[in-house]
Amino acid sequence: MKLHTVLLDLGGVFYEGTRLLPGAQDALARLRASGLALRFVTNTTRQSRAALLLELARLGLDVATDELLTPASAARTVLLERGLRPLLLIHPGLAPDFAGIEVDQPNAVVVGDAGDHFSYAGLNQAFRLLQAGAPLLALGRNRYFKEADGLSLDAGPFVAALEYAAGVSAELLGKPAPALFAAALRPLACTPAQAVMIGDDVEADVNGALAAGLGGILVRTGKYRPGDEMRLATGGRLADDIGAAVDSLCLDQGTR
Amino acid sequence: MKLHTVLLDLGGVFYEGTRLLPGAQDALARLRASGLALRFVTNTTRQSRAALLLELARLGLDVATDELLTPASAARTVLLERGLRPLLLIHPGLAPDFAGIEVDQPNAVVVGDAGDHFSYAGLNQAFRLLQAGAPLLALGRNRYFKEADGLSLDAGPFVAALEYAAGVSAELLGKPAPALFAAALRPLACTPAQAVMIGDDVEADVNGALAAGLGGILVRTGKYRPGDEMRLATGGRLADDIGAAVDSLCLDQGTR
Repeated sequence: MKLHTVLLDLGGVFYEGTRLLPGAQDALARLRASGLALRFVTNTTRQSRAALLLELARLGLDVATDELLTPASAARTVLLERGLRPLLLIHPGLAPDFAGIEVDQPNAVVVGDAGDHFSYAGLNQAFRLLQAGAPLLALGRNRYFKEADGLSLDAGPFVAALEYAAGVSAELLGKPAPALFAAALRPLACTPAQAVMIGDDVEADVNGALAAGLGGILVRTGKYRPGDEMRLATGGRLADDIGAAVDSLCLDQGTR
Repeated sequence: MKLHTVLLDLGGVFYEGTRLLPGAQDALARLRASGLALRFVTNTTRQSRAALLLELARLGLDVATDELLTPASAARTVLLERGLRPLLLIHPGLAPDFAGIEVDQPNAVVVGDAGDHFSYAGLNQAFRLLQAGAPLLALGRNRYFKEADGLSLDAGPFVAALEYAAGVSAELLGKPAPALFAAALRPLACTPAQAVMIGDDVEADVNGALAAGLGGILVRTGKYRPGDEMRLATGGRLADDIGAAVDSLCLDQGTR
């Protein structure tokens, strides 16, 4: 099966913090030259797509708007397709991604990593909507993330709180939700077997992709920790960094 | 086995809101006359013991300070016994019950029904303590309670959020925790088989007591809803109200 599409995580694969990783720009240039379709799939939930695209440009990474997929963009698609009006429990930085979406008289709940913007009143309003039958859309269910002064609560605990309160299960829109991988490939008319995902998170990126029928390559950068490869699902591969991962694709596929 | 102690729920058994239930005072007078030991076991987590005792007095219900057991009083005992300094995520109305407890440099987390007083910063501080090994003490794990304008989130969802985030299990101090029933009987030198619990909550009051080896009587007042008796565990009994429940005790025991 000839490779058609490469899905790529961003943070921890191409850069860490505000610093490009060695060989990142060269790896991207080689992917571009190969003619393969590219999609950048991130779980970021505190930054709008526009803000993230600006940051990528500043880093010298050439990513087009329609190549960038985030949980918020997946949520936007779901809301529009199903005519849902969301109560948004999200970080203000993410608000631009929901611009123009009808939010009066909400009949759905979207939960992201709202951080300090979570409140009892907001969670209670969400709970009452869920009790009335509104679907719960989760931009992520990560337990925590790393801040300068320590670990902090991510979206997952608040999703868990609402699930417990209302006796419902959230629809997960971020990685490793199989629907996210399927949604990335559908517009490209690419089957899962013709695609591979490259990322630094063994569960969300690589095992998620493998479960959805794609190939998966774990890079030893970003959040990778020695031993993560022991948790790789069957068929998952390992590469030192994005450059080595791209090398392995080209060798496999003979596209160079 | 002769009956020694009667455990009694308060709200929904003796009164609803601010109104005494029919026969409540007479039932209490007959219990007093029987010479049985009495303990009042409530899951209230927005009102201090002192405030609750005042309210009971106003209703004409004669309850002594040391007869009243609440999750906060159980937490206070646990904190003092184990030398723990709690971070308190509780309703301000409950603060008097923790007066004098050392809270600097906390090494434990107590979660109650803090309502509007829950904040991301407070939950995050709790999470970091749990990550560092602090125990999580839950005053309750009820999903929601009824307010004038609808159902509202109780302590349970926030306990669930912290359990999910830190990968820990809370120690439950409210009903139906077996430890609560045991703690109520221990100072009375009463075995579980010599005690019975009367309440309007089939799970928290009656099945909880039965699981701890006590007898249990469900009254058809307060939060009782037709059909609740179908969920009664083996050995659980049913009575129309607190008067009928007391009647059944006296008939059983011949103490009148």
